[in-house]
Amino acid sequence: MKHLRGIPELGVDGIVRILGLADHMVEVNKRAVPKVPALVGRTVVSLFFEDSTRTRISFETAAKRLSADTMTFSVSTSSVNKGESLRDTIETIDAMGVAAFIVRHKTSGVPWQIARWTDASIINAGDGWHQHPTQALLDCQTIRSELGRPAAIDCLAGLTVAIVGDVRHSRVARSDVQAFTALGARVVLVAPRTLLPPEVASWPVEVTSDLDSVIDGVDVLYMLRMQRERTNEALVPDLGEYSDRFGLDRRRAARLRDDCLVMHPGPMNRGVEMMIDPSELPRSVVTRQVGNGVAVRMAVLFDVLGESNPEVVP
Amino acid sequence: MKHLRGIPELGVDGIVRILGLADHMVEVNKRAVPKVPALVGRTVVSLFFEDSTRTRISFETAAKRLSADTMTFSVSTSSVNKGESLRDTIETIDAMGVAAFIVRHKTSGVPWQIARWTDASIINAGDGWHQHPTQALLDCQTIRSELGRPAAIDCLAGLTVAIVGDVRHSRVARSDVQAFTALGARVVLVAPRTLLPPEVASWPVEVTSDLDSVIDGVDVLYMLRMQRERTNEALVPDLGEYSDRFGLDRRRAARLRDDCLVMHPGPMNRGVEMMIDPSELPRSVVTRQVGNGVAVRMAVLFDVLGESNPEVVP
Amino acid sequence: MKHLRGIPELGVDGIVRILGLADHMVEVNKRAVPKVPALVGRTVVSLFFEDSTRTRISFETAAKRLSADTMTFSVSTSSVNKGESLRDTIETIDAMGVAAFIVRHKTSGVPWQIARWTDASIINAGDGWHQHPTQALLDCQTIRSELGRPAAIDCLAGLTVAIVGDVRHSRVARSDVQAFTALGARVVLVAPRTLLPPEVASWPVEVTSDLDSVIDGVDVLYMLRMQRERTNEALVPDLGEYSDRFGLDRRRAARLRDDCLVMHPGPMNRGVEMMIDPSELPRSVVTRQVGNGVAVRMAVLFDVLGESNPEVVP
Repeated sequence: MKHLRGIPELGVDGIVRILGLADHMVEVNKRAVPKVPALVGRTVVSLFFEDSTRTRISFETAAKRLSADTMTFSVSTSSVNKGESLRDTIETIDAMGVAAFIVRHKTSGVPWQIARWTDASIINAGDGWHQHPTQALLDCQTIRSELGRPAAIDCLAGLTVAIVGDVRHSRVARSDVQAFTALGARVVLVAPRTLLPPEVASWPVEVTSDLDSVIDGVDVLYMLRMQRERTNEALVPDLGEYSDRFGLDRRRAARLRDDCLVMHPGPMNRGVEMMIDPSELPRSVVTRQVGNGVAVRMAVLFDVLGESNPEVVP
Repeated sequence: MKHLRGIPELGVDGIVRILGLADHMVEVNKRAVPKVPALVGRTVVSLFFEDSTRTRISFETAAKRLSADTMTFSVSTSSVNKGESLRDTIETIDAMGVAAFIVRHKTSGVPWQIARWTDASIINAGDGWHQHPTQALLDCQTIRSELGRPAAIDCLAGLTVAIVGDVRHSRVARSDVQAFTALGARVVLVAPRTLLPPEVASWPVEVTSDLDSVIDGVDVLYMLRMQRERTNEALVPDLGEYSDRFGLDRRRAARLRDDCLVMHPGPMNRGVEMMIDPSELPRSVVTRQVGNGVAVRMAVLFDVLGESNPEVVP
Repeated sequence: MKHLRGIPELGVDGIVRILGLADHMVEVNKRAVPKVPALVGRTVVSLFFEDSTRTRISFETAAKRLSADTMTFSVSTSSVNKGESLRDTIETIDAMGVAAFIVRHKTSGVPWQIARWTDASIINAGDGWHQHPTQALLDCQTIRSELGRPAAIDCLAGLTVAIVGDVRHSRVARSDVQAFTALGARVVLVAPRTLLPPEVASWPVEVTSDLDSVIDGVDVLYMLRMQRERTNEALVPDLGEYSDRFGLDRRRAARLRDDCLVMHPGPMNRGVEMMIDPSELPRSVVTRQVGNGVAVRMAVLFDVLGESNPEVVP
């Protein structure tokens, strides 16, 4: 594939192909020397218009393990609004011979816009509330590897995933819903009405605002980050009430099935959606998500940029 | 050579040697793996006292393609004025074993001053209004490669180049005039009197303030960036009038000869000096300049730091 | 060893082992290609909560010369105070597969705290007024290599070192006292009473506030950086008086023994503790300290992360 901009254009075959490659990257990462020459001489540029040190470091670690050269282009928020300047910036960096841009931007659709201005590959590291495809892929990889399921188009079949929290403002939730359901999972969104998007009726999901009514039946409990800003916007009366209704505390944790995976995209808001330390949960896989993030991003970079390479591809 | 600080000290033989090396670097950059081991283990430090992401990324791309290690030393504007502190900073980084400093500074002459404090090579990435030698070299490389001329001391002979705009505050214009005329070109400066430097009478150029009188006879039209600050300094009455007299618009573009190259050092001020999108111009080579920038900077780094290396040098 | 957090836990055998390794790294750094593949594929993350470009660049140069991948995690001062957030940050980066964290923090003890949250190695690049172990090691390396002494447990025996200045607020002084005395040196602290730590009575050192009474008998004169902030804290009446009593000026320099080494951890406060340019002193080794800093940090990284490697270890 040329780009990774969103889960819908990747499609279920694409998801399965990336997950298969990610298994090999997990194996590479266990080696004494976790580095392969797959992308020697290819330049990968991080274009982060929104600050996100952890996602940027995950991508840069992935690129370096494939022996790519990495560069960070820090963009001040002020230049975001100058459409022309952004285009000139992209065309200039493109002309230096860049193989891929990793783009994060607060505005939905920017990765598609940028792709019109360059021949380089575009990897979406989060655009507005729209897409965060590598997060969805690492979440799929985490669920299926924890449950021992192969990389296949129905690998999440029979599973119920509850996604809890501020779905409306979450690109993670949008991408996860698309990827989880594409692989056969049943998804239940758990959120107050004010934090659901208007278009949710057309999504292939069930919706509830009562976490306690579903918590003992789910295979995966996916907690979203709750941002304090939402209370200013009058979408949530106060964080204490939010925590009472949608937070994971000891009482709710006790009702989870023994084999229920608990996930979170990070960074956690402790004391808000996470009222319990993940280390107290027998099947919290939050740090596994982070480790799978590097492997999945290696798989994506290799899929987008790599030639056939016998050392990496089986 | 030990340093690249300015075009005059490089001389015409030096210019020709760099252009010849740049041809090889263009070829390296077309390879499937555009990377050579020429500078393995050499450390190149970017010392940018003025922000310029595009120039810094161009140099870092060049250094990485030669397998050098790169580091960026960000200098807050506040420490610029402390002469002693700058000297201690240079001597300290020097003692770590740096092979070359790439220096940009708002004050003319700083690259020469720094060279007195270190045994490392100094590459001038722009000092005040004084010199920007790698820009001049990439501009020469672009003109001669577009016109199919060999790297030779008279490779721009017979060509007329018009440089249009704020010559007075432009290190690009100073370095370009020196390099273009050294290689045999005729140069015409097109600017309002207020934007010409006092010493222009001693330059080997012609001067006019009437763009329309020369535009249909030039082989290269080189548009300088017009900075909005100039209107505050009362050097230009307003940007609209400036654009009318000195901007490249559709009407003027139609009068260019079919084979006239249009160049710009970037970043463009669209709507000021560039009233037309470069993509509408059949022979705009603005993005070629950027690509040649990486090759020329590879050539400079190799000339300054490289040993004889059979893989790169013919 | 797993970590390098402080001189006491390193012990005299550890100091001697690092100094021996550093000799080999000095030899590596003199090679035409000063780079060895010892740490290929290992990721080293700089976590600098206090800004220190020179120490960070020294560590990154060291890591790159061992072929490690390096990344910088810039931490805004604001997040320093959120204990939970720091823990989540460490656990997240750890899960990406980091081999070592290089940590600088304004609070004493943070490197030990971080070590509880990660399986990666921790290298202390300075914590509060507490420890700066790589500075002490590079200081030992500088003294013994300048004096031609082998890496041995008594390699500083018979030497008198005067450490002059603000001992109280100096992690360098604390680490140096421990390392110098462990290797057999006699240490004299020269400082006003207000700039000595309360616990100095239990240190294995002599104390005086009269620099002139000791200056002609020392083998090493170690000048500490005097920070202007101390005058605001009423610990020093004014910097002029401080310079008169504790600064190194021409008059005092003339009284030094011909073979007395003059050292400073940098950055120097010229006109305060250094009233004379180091280049005027026949045996100033300030820039040698910087060069040894890279070699010692290579030795530490290799000791902490390297496997037995015939190319590097004898």
